[in-house]
Amino acid sequence: MALAAYPLGIECRFVDTQVDSPGGQVGPIRVAPLDDIGALRLLAAEVDVVTFDIENVSIAALREVESIVPVHPSPDLVAAAQDRLSEKQLFQSLAIPTAAFVPVESEADLAECDSVGWPIVLKARRLGYDGRGQRICHSADDLVSGWIELGRVPAIAEAWVPYERELSLIGVRGANNESAYYCLTENVHSDGILRSSIAPFNSQSLQRQGEEWLDQLMRKYDYRGVLTVEFFATASGLIANEMAPRVHNSGHWTIEGAATSQFENHIRAILGLPIGNTKAHGHAAMLNLLGELPARGLALSIDGVHWHEYGKSPRPARKLGHCTLVDNDRAELERRFAALKTALGQ
Amino acid sequence: MALAAYPLGIECRFVDTQVDSPGGQVGPIRVAPLDDIGALRLLAAEVDVVTFDIENVSIAALREVESIVPVHPSPDLVAAAQDRLSEKQLFQSLAIPTAAFVPVESEADLAECDSVGWPIVLKARRLGYDGRGQRICHSADDLVSGWIELGRVPAIAEAWVPYERELSLIGVRGANNESAYYCLTENVHSDGILRSSIAPFNSQSLQRQGEEWLDQLMRKYDYRGVLTVEFFATASGLIANEMAPRVHNSGHWTIEGAATSQFENHIRAILGLPIGNTKAHGHAAMLNLLGELPARGLALSIDGVHWHEYGKSPRPARKLGHCTLVDNDRAELERRFAALKTALGQ
Repeated sequence: MALAAYPLGIECRFVDTQVDSPGGQVGPIRVAPLDDIGALRLLAAEVDVVTFDIENVSIAALREVESIVPVHPSPDLVAAAQDRLSEKQLFQSLAIPTAAFVPVESEADLAECDSVGWPIVLKARRLGYDGRGQRICHSADDLVSGWIELGRVPAIAEAWVPYERELSLIGVRGANNESAYYCLTENVHSDGILRSSIAPFNSQSLQRQGEEWLDQLMRKYDYRGVLTVEFFATASGLIANEMAPRVHNSGHWTIEGAATSQFENHIRAILGLPIGNTKAHGHAAMLNLLGELPARGLALSIDGVHWHEYGKSPRPARKLGHCTLVDNDRAELERRFAALKTALGQ
Repeated sequence: MALAAYPLGIECRFVDTQVDSPGGQVGPIRVAPLDDIGALRLLAAEVDVVTFDIENVSIAALREVESIVPVHPSPDLVAAAQDRLSEKQLFQSLAIPTAAFVPVESEADLAECDSVGWPIVLKARRLGYDGRGQRICHSADDLVSGWIELGRVPAIAEAWVPYERELSLIGVRGANNESAYYCLTENVHSDGILRSSIAPFNSQSLQRQGEEWLDQLMRKYDYRGVLTVEFFATASGLIANEMAPRVHNSGHWTIEGAATSQFENHIRAILGLPIGNTKAHGHAAMLNLLGELPARGLALSIDGVHWHEYGKSPRPARKLGHCTLVDNDRAELERRFAALKTALGQ
């Protein structure tokens, strides 16, 4: 986000938990827990606007910062996105299709779950990401043991959706109700972690439908910034799975693959600058680099590949970087993307 | 250059003359004169490779740095480019057409100049850029007064070239003789300063001719990095005007307008990484922002415009930033580019 901000003439200041956090490589960083009100107040006193790129940020802290300086995106939507129950209820209130579910507060609630149909996905309401805090359950016994494994935390029991593919849609909304959308992106997850994305997924009807729903979500909260919704594409249309009030891994291809990246557009939106054109340059594919970085040259030797390292220390399954491949021709893109995955041993 | 380097996983360190120099906004900076051997030695001790983005850097200092760590591009070519006489002789040695000229060391030499034909452009051999150190002369008297104005420094008297347009060609050469070229770019100068560029200038024959010449220049010096040659396009073909051993203002459009920017390719080249694809995304136009910055929103409200501020303090005619406009359709690009210039009062 900072790399997109500098050319716009924006100076960046960061709060993050470690001194070698990515932001600290390109600007002044204050090291503190993300709910450290004192650190956030100091940040707020130095800047014109505050934003964030993770959604599990303290809402109380955001509200405190908001009393000093504008915070975008809206903490209200962030609060809704942090709790799978309120997220589901928000989707329902706007008639956005989502999987059937029942809230789980107690072991007694588990007995009510089979109304959603089997298999059931039991999900902790809070702090889930990259597949954490989820269990797929095929029986009442599974549900009980799964809930115990999750630590008996408040959860939802959700119908497993028989999807054809996973799609995400990234929208951006700025000042004066200006909004724009990137093309639908098809995503491949494994063990709950995004592995790769390819764009565009061409469907005028699904694109239009998704844009209408994001438009409703963003208008409801007078949203400013980038909003991502992840969908299951099923035989009967899109089913909203979850939303992320931030730039999203499935939009990293927009750096080279779109006229304006999601990062630049997020910055433009929160500053009230005009939103940039979101059209794609042909086709793009993105491959996540997890756990440890392969040799850069292996990837860059494939024509059209771009390399992105985040400067994070290696850790199993940690997102350390990604590669993007852009081509005008879809078949050629897919051929090279397969070569890229082979070259990187994926 | 640093903004292109970070995603590749490259940490940058800078030496520049002021603490608020652009590099210092995104990385550690050592403030020193650019010929401060001590400062450059300290820099060299911290890094794997040294490069630069101005050509009027001290050759003695580069040689000193080169004894510690690789320096790209080649100081030999930089030395040739710093002196208009050696630059001309280099072009001649490779049979690259260039304007007729005579060297001027003394007032007596001025009498020999009319052999090149009138009008004559008198140019100081060293430290010229953005039109500085040049006089157009229409008579022997002009030559004498012009040379006095230049401070009686070593100069060349060059035939004025009746050109149809000004074009530049940017090449990049990496390890293992790998090289690539951007498309020819058409440039508009005023008072010797680049005002705007538009690309591509489509001419297969001129493109091929220019690439052959850049290839010869780069091979001769085992060049690594981006090299720019500015040409006059005349009725009888290209005439080389001057070269710049660095990323070039006329290639700023490549940030959004090409598959890989000149900045990323320069970094790839000096590190021995594979060179990235140089093809253009349709058509691009670049407008320099000189002297003072207009309001950002005026430019960004035009569809397809990108904004680049360098964070430099304002000064008359100083290059403070640029705007880039990209479009698939040339006529549409030109229509919007005219609107951009109008919006910014240019």
